[in-house]
Amino acid sequence: MREIKVAVVGTKFMGRAHANAYRQARAFFSPPLAPVLHLACGTNEKETREFAEKFGFSGYTTDWREAVGDPQVGLVDICSPNDLHAPIALAAAKAGKAVFCEKPLARDLSEAKEMLRAVSDAGVPHMICFNYRFFPAIRLAKGLIEDGALGEIRQFHALYLQDWGLAPGLPLTWRFQKERAGSGALGDTAVHIVDLARFLVGEVAEVTGMLTTFVRERPLPGGGMGKVDVDDTAAFLARFSSGATGVFETSRVALGRKNFMHLEVNGSRGSLFWNAEDPNWLWFYSLDDPASVRGFRRIMVTEEVHPYAKNWWPTGHVLGYEHTFVHAVVELLSALSAGRNPVPSFVDGVRAQAVLEAVLLSEGSRRWERVPA
Amino acid sequence: MREIKVAVVGTKFMGRAHANAYRQARAFFSPPLAPVLHLACGTNEKETREFAEKFGFSGYTTDWREAVGDPQVGLVDICSPNDLHAPIALAAAKAGKAVFCEKPLARDLSEAKEMLRAVSDAGVPHMICFNYRFFPAIRLAKGLIEDGALGEIRQFHALYLQDWGLAPGLPLTWRFQKERAGSGALGDTAVHIVDLARFLVGEVAEVTGMLTTFVRERPLPGGGMGKVDVDDTAAFLARFSSGATGVFETSRVALGRKNFMHLEVNGSRGSLFWNAEDPNWLWFYSLDDPASVRGFRRIMVTEEVHPYAKNWWPTGHVLGYEHTFVHAVVELLSALSAGRNPVPSFVDGVRAQAVLEAVLLSEGSRRWERVPA
Amino acid sequence: MREIKVAVVGTKFMGRAHANAYRQARAFFSPPLAPVLHLACGTNEKETREFAEKFGFSGYTTDWREAVGDPQVGLVDICSPNDLHAPIALAAAKAGKAVFCEKPLARDLSEAKEMLRAVSDAGVPHMICFNYRFFPAIRLAKGLIEDGALGEIRQFHALYLQDWGLAPGLPLTWRFQKERAGSGALGDTAVHIVDLARFLVGEVAEVTGMLTTFVRERPLPGGGMGKVDVDDTAAFLARFSSGATGVFETSRVALGRKNFMHLEVNGSRGSLFWNAEDPNWLWFYSLDDPASVRGFRRIMVTEEVHPYAKNWWPTGHVLGYEHTFVHAVVELLSALSAGRNPVPSFVDGVRAQAVLEAVLLSEGSRRWERVPA
Amino acid sequence: MREIKVAVVGTKFMGRAHANAYRQARAFFSPPLAPVLHLACGTNEKETREFAEKFGFSGYTTDWREAVGDPQVGLVDICSPNDLHAPIALAAAKAGKAVFCEKPLARDLSEAKEMLRAVSDAGVPHMICFNYRFFPAIRLAKGLIEDGALGEIRQFHALYLQDWGLAPGLPLTWRFQKERAGSGALGDTAVHIVDLARFLVGEVAEVTGMLTTFVRERPLPGGGMGKVDVDDTAAFLARFSSGATGVFETSRVALGRKNFMHLEVNGSRGSLFWNAEDPNWLWFYSLDDPASVRGFRRIMVTEEVHPYAKNWWPTGHVLGYEHTFVHAVVELLSALSAGRNPVPSFVDGVRAQAVLEAVLLSEGSRRWERVPA
Repeated sequence: MREIKVAVVGTKFMGRAHANAYRQARAFFSPPLAPVLHLACGTNEKETREFAEKFGFSGYTTDWREAVGDPQVGLVDICSPNDLHAPIALAAAKAGKAVFCEKPLARDLSEAKEMLRAVSDAGVPHMICFNYRFFPAIRLAKGLIEDGALGEIRQFHALYLQDWGLAPGLPLTWRFQKERAGSGALGDTAVHIVDLARFLVGEVAEVTGMLTTFVRERPLPGGGMGKVDVDDTAAFLARFSSGATGVFETSRVALGRKNFMHLEVNGSRGSLFWNAEDPNWLWFYSLDDPASVRGFRRIMVTEEVHPYAKNWWPTGHVLGYEHTFVHAVVELLSALSAGRNPVPSFVDGVRAQAVLEAVLLSEGSRRWERVPA
Repeated sequence: MREIKVAVVGTKFMGRAHANAYRQARAFFSPPLAPVLHLACGTNEKETREFAEKFGFSGYTTDWREAVGDPQVGLVDICSPNDLHAPIALAAAKAGKAVFCEKPLARDLSEAKEMLRAVSDAGVPHMICFNYRFFPAIRLAKGLIEDGALGEIRQFHALYLQDWGLAPGLPLTWRFQKERAGSGALGDTAVHIVDLARFLVGEVAEVTGMLTTFVRERPLPGGGMGKVDVDDTAAFLARFSSGATGVFETSRVALGRKNFMHLEVNGSRGSLFWNAEDPNWLWFYSLDDPASVRGFRRIMVTEEVHPYAKNWWPTGHVLGYEHTFVHAVVELLSALSAGRNPVPSFVDGVRAQAVLEAVLLSEGSRRWERVPA
Repeated sequence: MREIKVAVVGTKFMGRAHANAYRQARAFFSPPLAPVLHLACGTNEKETREFAEKFGFSGYTTDWREAVGDPQVGLVDICSPNDLHAPIALAAAKAGKAVFCEKPLARDLSEAKEMLRAVSDAGVPHMICFNYRFFPAIRLAKGLIEDGALGEIRQFHALYLQDWGLAPGLPLTWRFQKERAGSGALGDTAVHIVDLARFLVGEVAEVTGMLTTFVRERPLPGGGMGKVDVDDTAAFLARFSSGATGVFETSRVALGRKNFMHLEVNGSRGSLFWNAEDPNWLWFYSLDDPASVRGFRRIMVTEEVHPYAKNWWPTGHVLGYEHTFVHAVVELLSALSAGRNPVPSFVDGVRAQAVLEAVLLSEGSRRWERVPA
Repeated sequence: MREIKVAVVGTKFMGRAHANAYRQARAFFSPPLAPVLHLACGTNEKETREFAEKFGFSGYTTDWREAVGDPQVGLVDICSPNDLHAPIALAAAKAGKAVFCEKPLARDLSEAKEMLRAVSDAGVPHMICFNYRFFPAIRLAKGLIEDGALGEIRQFHALYLQDWGLAPGLPLTWRFQKERAGSGALGDTAVHIVDLARFLVGEVAEVTGMLTTFVRERPLPGGGMGKVDVDDTAAFLARFSSGATGVFETSRVALGRKNFMHLEVNGSRGSLFWNAEDPNWLWFYSLDDPASVRGFRRIMVTEEVHPYAKNWWPTGHVLGYEHTFVHAVVELLSALSAGRNPVPSFVDGVRAQAVLEAVLLSEGSRRWERVPA
């Protein structure tokens, strides 16, 4: 089988999720192009070495330029903090490597566009890791919508609430710094629901939003407190190009909510809702049901007929969060093998970033703002 | 409109539920025979008088014989402790009055049969208050089963769990005394799920069960502790005449469960489940749904097309527990007006009691026992 | 016991809910002032007479001026379409009667203020029927917030979704006409969540919103189609005076949702959520719990220790929608008896209307708008 | 790091789950003894080779004797049909290899005891794969019980319902043949809830049960229909040695239920429930909570403080079914490394089998039966 050598830059949450995905894709999906974990790249040498050993990388480095530059590497997988997305992607494009980048694509729209330009100009394949698209239930939802089971879509609601930002003593990491992250909850979590809105409903035309920072100081690694200069909650209203309406909210400080991404889509013939805390269930309401037995069906998306399911376990044996990355990697490898660009691509990354940009603009202008082209 | 004068014997939980039901039936259902709250009857004069005033009874008494004997009374409604069911019903039958009796019909099967004989011999209408049959969701379930939506029914499960028996300081009331109650959780709560099993699935042929008493002593009203001589949990396996299997369990001491009556019916074409703690929802699974969107539908049984619903409030405005009694009274009054016997009748009371009797027998014999004819 | 004679104007959904409430309040709560159903008032004589008979009114009329003018009437209860709220309230105030008015208080803010001025100037007691405040679970929530169990409140979310607006053939009733209703979903359903936001979190300082009408034509009673000139969905972002953020959305056309009012309040020490489709349950998360067993507790608000519960049924025997009106009436009667003004009053009606007004303004200006004083 | 070479016998559902577990244990848990996937063993050569390649085994064979006899193999992992458990385990014990065996341990109690005797006599480590013990929520439940959070345990309920037995055209595989499987749903699925009952509550003293076969014929691989001679549903009542009561039910033909393992434990101070279809949530009710806010807490068992959680993903990012096998393998490797026998061991396999044996006895005798020593 053909192989492709992968360099994974980043060894924390996302680095682990990606490294795992390559291994599992190979074991459970037999992709036409076999990924080889070639180089792990992190900032701390000891941690990087351990990470490389655990996941079976052939080697490791603490210099991302070395990872990108290694002539054997065919795919650069970017799991670094946001401020490194662009430099690494640009270098990878220049080196002619395929690029798989974590979300948000960049710290802001112009940086995102620069990245898209770079990969386009270089003609290298590019994918953004909007992993939530790859939950079997989301795929089923997408299929139902495409088949017209919802009729005309009118309303989209998404609440994405977490509370990790309230963990006592949580230090001022890069995720709380505008310089490094670009924004806070907006780019970190709202970007997921923006992408899912685009995936399920279509393009967002205009928005009006508000950003808030409830926890304004956090401990500095070296002692003392530092200022948080990004949002920890974000909410916005939206009108889609189709005329549908959207309500979006995200938070890092919504006590009691862990990974509560509640999505709901209401159409003229049917409705759907789903929650990432219970990701194996899709709820579907259909006007086609007889009137006396209409109700949201709680569909356990683990049957052979369901997306991805038969590659895993028998009916009813649930999947978890990490499986989405495996499915994303399967798409990536299938696309690379077929000579097409994977989906979602940097184009999707840019479009999502444009929505975030409009939200930021509206926060400043206190008006509705068009989503930039 | 024709009227019927009602004597309600009992002024506590059930007396209040019944008194309320007559009033609400008249306001919300326009029954063909209008109930008039004529006499309230309780043991404590002050409480009885207040009860009569609150619910608008014309008068009250503390002597049930007087209530039964009042020539104006056309309907005797028995909400007294279990040991008075038979004496009152027998007297009412003898006096030619219609009888509406709380469950369980009697303390044991022979007493129940005596009551059935009395009303049958006297030719008076008789009804037992298995109020759970009158939840809209249960009616919808019944209709689905009758329409064949479940195919051949194979399995029935019922867990009916409460925890009021753990309330600190709860005294040794009649419900904990075999002499007055007949049995404990078995006759008090299991009888409901036995009736629902008969209603939805059919006759029970044989059972094997176990009774347990976890809280063995309770405070006596006069001080000191008295012995509980009835069960506070009961469980039994059953085979229905149809070949279906049944699992039944009830408890008064299942900490955290308040009125948790979970019913589930599995058939060859569909399944249903329902819980009395969320009584407005019926869950229905159908093989007729397309394979990829099969799932239990959570049907909110509050639409105009649903049983009883349009007499109350618009869609989505939920009903509570007490409404079941209103619906039962509507059936009672409709039957009396039409000159037919209401359903469920003392026959159903006797059949349920026969199942309880078999459970008690099996507890002693430690074997499966046939349900007596 | 002292009595007060009530005239109920309106015989449909709300007229029935209120008429029922007076009767049930008397039976279950023994209020210090006993309501007497004196006059029912509707537009159709036959329907009004039947309504009066069913609920036991002493008489009826089809002229609201007669109802207000009847010297025996002490309390005027307004359940008419919105455009009659002001005329009836003004007349009742002038006649020195206590006034109980359905929501929204008026068609717009100036009308609402006129009503408040009228009752204030006349010195008559006034109450608005924000019945959702009277769910036991909402009262428990209020108590927890007041006791500091949530710490500093930061985020409030409310989704109030219904789908009755999609019923096939639903005619162009007053609810779809701006002239009569003032607004659509905004005044009809959003007003409830605005009131609950004020009740639980405090005053709203500013908002930005969007209104949409998806179903733009409906059948006219006389044939043909008529134009809907009110919104059927409304959504807005809010900042509370306290600094908390709010997200509000309501819809009449969210297919599959029946009376889905999901409220969530996130604070620095605890969080709460609740849904009107499952109103007996309050979910509460507390940082005071040990870390390994933290989770939202699903509290069945039917225990003796809970608000209103012990006047109804034993633990676990659920209440429904209509009970909120009973509790509201108990407050009304208790206040009248005690010589204080009931809560919520027309002041609350005006404050809620001011928020709606700001939403409407922002829809036009496409900017954030301050809630008018 | 020290390594142990593993032979996995079986390449289907369980073979895949185990092979995956060794790999993931190494990547996510750094066990003190590193498993090496040495030999895969299946009956079909092509499938076995592909399986070996996908999971990275060094080699493969179609002869289990070869796998057991390979001098490099230190651990034999038995994922074969039930009738091969004993022969392979006996051979492995004789060869001095550690043994990890799927459940049920054997086809019947005497076979299970023979296996236990073999590994004991040989002095080799032995473990049975009761993987459900290794859900984080079950571990948390176990900890709460051990800490006394439930007080005295009184009631245990377990419903384990699936419907795969209704899949159209499902052939007469070994799972439907007594000769190969020993029993049907009893040994396949009831054995899991028996083990969890023992794990959480303690030893079962006596039982009375019923077995039923609803689907009596299935297609033969070569055409025509063959007789099913095992149960597809099983239910039994139990008394634990402690005095607690138990109700157990399992089914392969409960339409609509996929992997519905509902467990509930009620004690004198607290209660717990859990469902394998939503495995990341544990529900816990405690009398220690203030009376007005008592309710089952829905604990998302994904926090750093929870069992196994910090080795995986941040809070709220859910685990799936397969992770239980990883945790089981971590226990296995840790025990082997520490020179102690893993838990659960063949002793637990035998004790669970003894309960099944008593159920089968009671099915024949129609009486309660003691669980054999």
